[in-house]
Amino acid sequence: MTAAKPLVFDLSTCFGRGRVTSKHLKSFEKMLIAAKERVEREVAEEKLGFWKAPELQAKPKNLAAMANLVASWQGHYDTLVVVGIGGSALGTRMLLNALTHRYHNELSAEKRGGMKVYLLENDDPDSFEALWSAIDPLKTVFNVISKSGTTAETASQFATVLQRMRKLYPNSWSEHFVFTTDPEKGVLRPFAAQHGIACLDVPPDVGGRFSVLTPVGLLPALAAGIDIQGLLKGAAAMSRRILEAPAERNPALRIAGLHVLADTAMGKNMVVVMPYADGLRDWTEWFCQLWAESLGKRSAEDGREVRAGTTPIKALGAIDQHSQMQLYMEGPDDKFFVFLHVEAFEKKVRFPGKKYLPDELNYLSGHTMQELIQAELKASRFALSRQGRLSYEIRLPKIAAETLGQLIFWAEATTCYAGYLYGVNPFDQPGVELGKKFAYGLMGREGFEKFKQKIDKAPAPKEDHLL
Amino acid sequence: MTAAKPLVFDLSTCFGRGRVTSKHLKSFEKMLIAAKERVEREVAEEKLGFWKAPELQAKPKNLAAMANLVASWQGHYDTLVVVGIGGSALGTRMLLNALTHRYHNELSAEKRGGMKVYLLENDDPDSFEALWSAIDPLKTVFNVISKSGTTAETASQFATVLQRMRKLYPNSWSEHFVFTTDPEKGVLRPFAAQHGIACLDVPPDVGGRFSVLTPVGLLPALAAGIDIQGLLKGAAAMSRRILEAPAERNPALRIAGLHVLADTAMGKNMVVVMPYADGLRDWTEWFCQLWAESLGKRSAEDGREVRAGTTPIKALGAIDQHSQMQLYMEGPDDKFFVFLHVEAFEKKVRFPGKKYLPDELNYLSGHTMQELIQAELKASRFALSRQGRLSYEIRLPKIAAETLGQLIFWAEATTCYAGYLYGVNPFDQPGVELGKKFAYGLMGREGFEKFKQKIDKAPAPKEDHLL
Repeated sequence: MTAAKPLVFDLSTCFGRGRVTSKHLKSFEKMLIAAKERVEREVAEEKLGFWKAPELQAKPKNLAAMANLVASWQGHYDTLVVVGIGGSALGTRMLLNALTHRYHNELSAEKRGGMKVYLLENDDPDSFEALWSAIDPLKTVFNVISKSGTTAETASQFATVLQRMRKLYPNSWSEHFVFTTDPEKGVLRPFAAQHGIACLDVPPDVGGRFSVLTPVGLLPALAAGIDIQGLLKGAAAMSRRILEAPAERNPALRIAGLHVLADTAMGKNMVVVMPYADGLRDWTEWFCQLWAESLGKRSAEDGREVRAGTTPIKALGAIDQHSQMQLYMEGPDDKFFVFLHVEAFEKKVRFPGKKYLPDELNYLSGHTMQELIQAELKASRFALSRQGRLSYEIRLPKIAAETLGQLIFWAEATTCYAGYLYGVNPFDQPGVELGKKFAYGLMGREGFEKFKQKIDKAPAPKEDHLL
Repeated sequence: MTAAKPLVFDLSTCFGRGRVTSKHLKSFEKMLIAAKERVEREVAEEKLGFWKAPELQAKPKNLAAMANLVASWQGHYDTLVVVGIGGSALGTRMLLNALTHRYHNELSAEKRGGMKVYLLENDDPDSFEALWSAIDPLKTVFNVISKSGTTAETASQFATVLQRMRKLYPNSWSEHFVFTTDPEKGVLRPFAAQHGIACLDVPPDVGGRFSVLTPVGLLPALAAGIDIQGLLKGAAAMSRRILEAPAERNPALRIAGLHVLADTAMGKNMVVVMPYADGLRDWTEWFCQLWAESLGKRSAEDGREVRAGTTPIKALGAIDQHSQMQLYMEGPDDKFFVFLHVEAFEKKVRFPGKKYLPDELNYLSGHTMQELIQAELKASRFALSRQGRLSYEIRLPKIAAETLGQLIFWAEATTCYAGYLYGVNPFDQPGVELGKKFAYGLMGREGFEKFKQKIDKAPAPKEDHLL
């Protein structure tokens, strides 16, 4: 098997008058070198959990653990429900969106060639019951994904499913579960041991938003019929490319630098991520978590208050040309645009001859739908560029496991470099704790009474603030 | 039938130290009154197409036209495919998401109680073929939605479907189509007349992004089994509420004012729209088009360059607490938050007793999933407020046709007021033309050669800009 073609990064629309200049770049050179050396050192010292993940998961022992599980379900179960939220779900959604049929769960078993996969993400009671009514519990495995097992949304949905399954299948309910969790800590491990429930490990040094290339994302992907070895191979290829390249040819380091420059020196506080392909829609969603949660930080590692981070915006071409492009073209110049271009779709769809087209559409005749969507990307990027807007383009040879693996790893490495350039820790998320504490207080959790009191003591809205 | 409870708007977290003050409000008073009077005048003169839409569509003649069509399909067709993009699709997606079962298309005909509805939006060839393979053309009606009929994505997909259907059903293909288009203009009307294809009108004075409460959104909704009269009734109730209220009790005018203040006087160049309910996820998407395309304008109506518009951001609680909240809490203070709170979900989902819960989760026992998601919203809003962040909350009694109708009309009116406060025309979209021209050029359309030449003449990327 030959390796997949590498991704191409076209940065040309970042440079020139009104955009990034050699002066900007000069001022950044030392920081880029420092970030490069830090990553190299941390990779050598095996300090970056996400960097090790593709190689670790590709070990025969780890691949076999997942393959055996999925094989053991064959003939018994045709549906996998992922119970997880945030980093435990977005990666799986991305893989399913890119690498399975657009209507995977609606296809016949034969056409599908893998299990149906659903996600229980949000703690929305209507969604919960809708899913429950759509599946056949007898034929369903629930993959509960949580490092700690105490994430409120996941734990409460798990408990509810558990109660129902114990009632339905008093003797065999435990066979309907598999946990993806910390190898030692957390509340799911002892429960699994007690009831003989299968478990897979989330490596302790890999955070949720960096965990798609661990069993968190790989097990559901494998169940759906996705080539997970291709994913890992692509990721490993990008890892090598980044480590072996000199600074000026390193696509993660250079692009991280451009993002931080665009923010701190050029006032672009947003990043618009706009693939022109439906199959990358949820890649964007996954990237938005990675970027926002890693870089949106009040304090630098040295304690300075920095209020870092740009806001990622999900867009989708060509759809958002009919929704957001007006704002992008004419509104404030506060955005950095990332286009994703697919060079070869699986299908082409040739347009019909002139006799099927009104005169006004004759120009389409002889072309393909692939050509149209590609022309639209090129036209949008060019038009934005003529307005002086900053952008770059990532070219994927196609949407396939290996190219997606490259793209995933590139995003993780770029985010890591960007964190180091901002001077923040890209691997923590201290800002989400306060909201959790208030929610615990409202739900009556012991030890959080004072948080409830704070909310209770807040004055009621004045009458003229309530319409 | 009694009317649905009205929406409640809680603006209390907009005001106070570091947020909106009475000084801000004072400076805005005259502008608000001017905008109010302008809307009242234009409504009285019947100049605002979107304002008239709910009443117009509720006329028995118009309701019957749609009902007769859907009735005529019964027994023959079980699937409707909407061929449309942007304003011709986002409204339908919103209605389906809010008012049908979460897995509508996967349910049996009996459970579903309406036709399956799919959307052909993007000109992605893989999506096109995936949809084609998922449907049974014999049982499918294609609803082509385009005012002009020349929108490239829609027209090219229509032509491709047309070719295939003519081949499959040489004698009856025309029965598989219905057009929603301009009453007189455009390329679809003459084609329909020639082949006896059913047509519904998009009122000429209603633009795509304001068209959900016309046959554009109402026909697919009715086909899916949605209560479209409830939608129209809710919209009409909100229209009356807005027109009858004094300025200080008008939820569209006051909130439009807060948005424009937050942008122009307080540096918030983003609006984060965050419902805590899966059923409002696509409402957000629809709103993002409405807001961005209406307000993102280079020039005011008097010709001044204003570069107006804030960027709408799609979020979803509680999921994005695990994705974006870190950035919202600790990143730059550049956002205005809109929370949507659902007071009664259809289901509650009571959590199991303590014996099913690990000790750490005992606090959930006796509560419901509805309480948890509501507590999370309250906690997030409170936590953000303690950081001085600006927000307000919209409370929906429940997700149902009448409440959604209110919410839709409120959003349209608020966007209209905001446009008038910025001084821009909220009903045009001049900024999307340039990109279209470049795309026509690239596709070889006659008359657009010079646009292709401009792209061809652009220098190739330098080697060091291509990684």
